[in-house]
Amino acid sequence: MNVLIINCGSSSLKFQLIDSKTESVLAKGLCERIGIDGQFTYAPANGIKETSQKPMPTHDEAIQYVLASLTDKKNGVIESLEEIDAVGHRVVHGGEYFSKATLITDEVMEAIDKCSDLAPLHNPANLIGIRACQKAMPNVPMSAVFDTAFHQTMPPKAYLYAIPYKYYEKYKIRKYGFHGTSHSYVSQRLAEYMQRPADKTKTIVCHLGNGASVTAIENGRSVATSMGFTPLAGLAMGTRCGSIDVAIVEYLANKENLDLEGVLDILNKESGVLGLSDGLSSDFRDLFEASKAGNKKAEQAIEAFCYNVARYVGQYVAVMNGVDSIVFTAGIGENVPGVRSRVCAYLEYLGINLNITENRRRGEECLISTPDSKVKVWVIPTNEELAIARETVALL
Amino acid sequence: MNVLIINCGSSSLKFQLIDSKTESVLAKGLCERIGIDGQFTYAPANGIKETSQKPMPTHDEAIQYVLASLTDKKNGVIESLEEIDAVGHRVVHGGEYFSKATLITDEVMEAIDKCSDLAPLHNPANLIGIRACQKAMPNVPMSAVFDTAFHQTMPPKAYLYAIPYKYYEKYKIRKYGFHGTSHSYVSQRLAEYMQRPADKTKTIVCHLGNGASVTAIENGRSVATSMGFTPLAGLAMGTRCGSIDVAIVEYLANKENLDLEGVLDILNKESGVLGLSDGLSSDFRDLFEASKAGNKKAEQAIEAFCYNVARYVGQYVAVMNGVDSIVFTAGIGENVPGVRSRVCAYLEYLGINLNITENRRRGEECLISTPDSKVKVWVIPTNEELAIARETVALL
Repeated sequence: MNVLIINCGSSSLKFQLIDSKTESVLAKGLCERIGIDGQFTYAPANGIKETSQKPMPTHDEAIQYVLASLTDKKNGVIESLEEIDAVGHRVVHGGEYFSKATLITDEVMEAIDKCSDLAPLHNPANLIGIRACQKAMPNVPMSAVFDTAFHQTMPPKAYLYAIPYKYYEKYKIRKYGFHGTSHSYVSQRLAEYMQRPADKTKTIVCHLGNGASVTAIENGRSVATSMGFTPLAGLAMGTRCGSIDVAIVEYLANKENLDLEGVLDILNKESGVLGLSDGLSSDFRDLFEASKAGNKKAEQAIEAFCYNVARYVGQYVAVMNGVDSIVFTAGIGENVPGVRSRVCAYLEYLGINLNITENRRRGEECLISTPDSKVKVWVIPTNEELAIARETVALL
Repeated sequence: MNVLIINCGSSSLKFQLIDSKTESVLAKGLCERIGIDGQFTYAPANGIKETSQKPMPTHDEAIQYVLASLTDKKNGVIESLEEIDAVGHRVVHGGEYFSKATLITDEVMEAIDKCSDLAPLHNPANLIGIRACQKAMPNVPMSAVFDTAFHQTMPPKAYLYAIPYKYYEKYKIRKYGFHGTSHSYVSQRLAEYMQRPADKTKTIVCHLGNGASVTAIENGRSVATSMGFTPLAGLAMGTRCGSIDVAIVEYLANKENLDLEGVLDILNKESGVLGLSDGLSSDFRDLFEASKAGNKKAEQAIEAFCYNVARYVGQYVAVMNGVDSIVFTAGIGENVPGVRSRVCAYLEYLGINLNITENRRRGEECLISTPDSKVKVWVIPTNEELAIARETVALL
């Protein structure tokens, strides 16, 4: 069964065609600058990656290029569109409507639309992508897989903010959490590894990429996560501030003579480790290089990042009253041993013992704690597209 | 030596006269509605508490009533003003200028004034109180004891926010922390109890009152605390929201058509457990009573409060890579066994074992963990006035 995975932004569309039987990627690519000038990148698994300019006034043209490329005589990977058995859409926000992936119906699209208010940059774009695909492949079943769904198992004490309760009732202001597809995928992969039923585990997953979040997963269910009402909260990230005193918003607005939007823009785009390093970089390769060369602000950004990850791990151990496994995933989690070792250095009280040799590995599934470590520490690369493909197949 | 302790607000002035030798309170009281109509409450240790209306256009009149009452023939506790050897002023914000209490000089007052920007409701009022005392007792030495000073030992990874570094440099936006006098007093008292040098300890103090904060104290020094740039951050409190996703500010402002000040007002005054309980109460006695009567929102407020305290304890264990002692103090911490037991229920993984009988005690110093508990849990009533008196005596 071939599943086309679509991740649609307001001016972009990422795709992968996955053979669900072998779980291999047949082809993948990216449409960019949709509605501007249009750029198309296509990479078949057994071929050469090519980028070209293509006019893309709307997502409809974008999806046509995708389908034409996939079925192209020369560089295509399937004979005809008949060979696309399903489409899996990544949808950012499912609000309280969706606690798992679902087949797309009119009612589902209506509910996704209702969540647009909670994710104004993402949900409308996700809907545009769904409609474009429906137009191009009217008879192919489609699924929506939500970033928020996995966290819908959180209890009220974890998702309610200490603000007037009426704002939860009226506006659904609560903690939603994101990266759910990744946290879910990684924790399931771990359960396979451990050969232990997922419902007897206390796991903490550290998804550390340019966006970053930590999730406490008890018995296979998310019980707490660091992102909040929006992806701005929780850990300090590449450019996002994470959780800070809200009073700073007012102070900064007054001092810099900015409106609310202006302040939020700074907190989203100029903050995180980029801000901590005084504008040096949001990329950990740059930060580690600069730190080695003696740049104190780069070092302080790395230190603060790892410290914050450890703080979240620490609090989630309390939330679950214990922990069996800690997993690192996503760009930084998979590829930066220095971050993992610094985080784990805070956690010796849990009986964690890092295997320094194994921790040098990058981008591969491995156990990086020693055999006698009381809590196991893992690296498990995430694969959100594969997770969406699996969820889609499971629905059909 | 008699020390007069002054805690001055914009329209109020609290005082205690403490005999530093016996550490007993000779008299205490409160001036309220200064600049409005004026109300004066005076309570000598061996007498009757009396409240009366007194015209108080400014803090100068207020301090005159205090001094007149203390030296009053009938209800006074000293013969003359000569018997006041020192005045200790509580000052909220010491910024980065003050890492400990200090004798007040012109330079000190200038520095306190420079911090007014960081605590616009408090520091100007504290200065008014200092000036009024100087006017009334020109030759008495005075000290300033800061709420923030104890936390100045935090490392940059704990006090820097992940926002552009220039805002720390330009505006000193950083985590300061508050309740420092209480955290310091309680941790010192614990060290006395443990008969163990303070520099070999890992302590977490939960100061749980209407305002609430948790502090990690390693080797006698604050290394992390839950309040932030302002006292709004950290734990959900009586009416304050604690740490929430800053994006909520923008969302709420738009939805409710409020300006920034309006939103911050709600987050300061209508949030916390008051908000979580849907406006029921900020008082834990009311909440426990309602919860017992089946009120689910009251129960959910209590649950969320305790959960958040446990989250902070958990993260501070990670920050210090371990913990020896956990201390509960302030109104709720000293008097609500149900909060303590719920918090500790999350912390069994640390080897904590609560002594249920001892935990029933209220308002007295006691060890509430069992002898075999790996981490000791204490109740130690705080006494900020006594702490200020001690610091003042130490300075002279």
